[in-house]
Amino acid sequence: MEPAIGDALGEALLAYLADGEEAGGHVIERDDGYINADSPVLYFTDIPDWFPVEKSVPQRVHGRVLDIGAGGGRFAIALQELGHDVTALDVSPGCLEACRRRGVHNTFAGTIFDLAATSPEPFDTFLLMGHNIGLLGGPDHAPVFLDALRSMARPGARLLGSGRDPEQTDDPDHLAYQEMNRKRGRRPGQLIIRVRWRAIATDWFDYWFLPVAELESLAMARGWRLADTVYERDHYLVELRLAS
Amino acid sequence: MEPAIGDALGEALLAYLADGEEAGGHVIERDDGYINADSPVLYFTDIPDWFPVEKSVPQRVHGRVLDIGAGGGRFAIALQELGHDVTALDVSPGCLEACRRRGVHNTFAGTIFDLAATSPEPFDTFLLMGHNIGLLGGPDHAPVFLDALRSMARPGARLLGSGRDPEQTDDPDHLAYQEMNRKRGRRPGQLIIRVRWRAIATDWFDYWFLPVAELESLAMARGWRLADTVYERDHYLVELRLAS
Repeated sequence: MEPAIGDALGEALLAYLADGEEAGGHVIERDDGYINADSPVLYFTDIPDWFPVEKSVPQRVHGRVLDIGAGGGRFAIALQELGHDVTALDVSPGCLEACRRRGVHNTFAGTIFDLAATSPEPFDTFLLMGHNIGLLGGPDHAPVFLDALRSMARPGARLLGSGRDPEQTDDPDHLAYQEMNRKRGRRPGQLIIRVRWRAIATDWFDYWFLPVAELESLAMARGWRLADTVYERDHYLVELRLAS
Repeated sequence: MEPAIGDALGEALLAYLADGEEAGGHVIERDDGYINADSPVLYFTDIPDWFPVEKSVPQRVHGRVLDIGAGGGRFAIALQELGHDVTALDVSPGCLEACRRRGVHNTFAGTIFDLAATSPEPFDTFLLMGHNIGLLGGPDHAPVFLDALRSMARPGARLLGSGRDPEQTDDPDHLAYQEMNRKRGRRPGQLIIRVRWRAIATDWFDYWFLPVAELESLAMARGWRLADTVYERDHYLVELRLAS
């Protein structure tokens, strides 16, 4: 039997806020059957416990901030406390409820396309942290995604995002998945995943691990320039900029 | 896609021994789609970190011991160190390899039926710890299981096992599963589960959470008397005895 469709990540994070480790963690499932038990703890860390590549984010942030796929709100809260005007965006109502319980003032439930449709006050910084460069989704979706951000951007806006380089892994399970992807005409790191928690699962969604060079070329074609890259093993942080 | 069939628990425990938490935990999946991220850590705890109901096991053990579904060997090792002659039995080669790496001398790869077929030297104590009363499987399988143990038992042998009482939960997901079980003609706590780790999964198997009263009545019919029960919320430890 298939799990019921629901807000698996949001429910997992809210349960963790209520009951701690007792609540049980959520799981990321890939469409080849690979699973990975994820830890809700990592969605609520403070700056000292962030990954090294993440720690430079506060000093790179500028002006009005949109935190995309905000999760438990760890970036939104830290930046809000530093005085930034931050909006936490997520498709998960539970994640946004977790953000609010932890003190995030501004939240938006929906996709960046939903937000763009409301013609919001423009942003100076977009965050795609926690590997959320993956939300670019794939080669077809990425240009549309980057254009939507540009439509909400002030001149000179920056995009700070973290991702994973699929070419930097020697894990046989991941290499087998990449090979399967090539055979079905997808980019090697184009994942199809879902989040599961207890009896519920999200719908399957696209999440793209792509090399920085490929990201740079895609972004450049949509007016974004790669201003900086920091690597930590197969993880990277990128800073993209629009012309000012 | 379905995961490949493999020794998911054994591989997870060996990876944990090699790489610690980095290895990623395994997941228990129920056939209604409910999942539970399990922790390899719990398979390697020493006596001080055992659950309260488990701590009386060493003083209840007697003579030659068969540890059924030995997992990471936490009971086998503790009892071996206390001077008992212990055999760790598991269907998972990886679990037994983990047991051996941690110092367990005697291991048997297979089911209790496989072991009984070898006419082993009889045992004085059978362990079904870590909720392994669940291995009784269901009302049809339990009598066969208990008879196989009796065929390897010395007079007066005891069975120490832990389980969960399905009537003691108010979890809506578990109650829904129990109702589904009733509708398909199964006992409420008769689980169908499998273990998943990374890209592999075990076959689906039966695992039965039954109330102590039902266990007592089943066991009595096969010559086993309920000598003691200790409860800890919905968890219990039972001691069953054969006539001496």
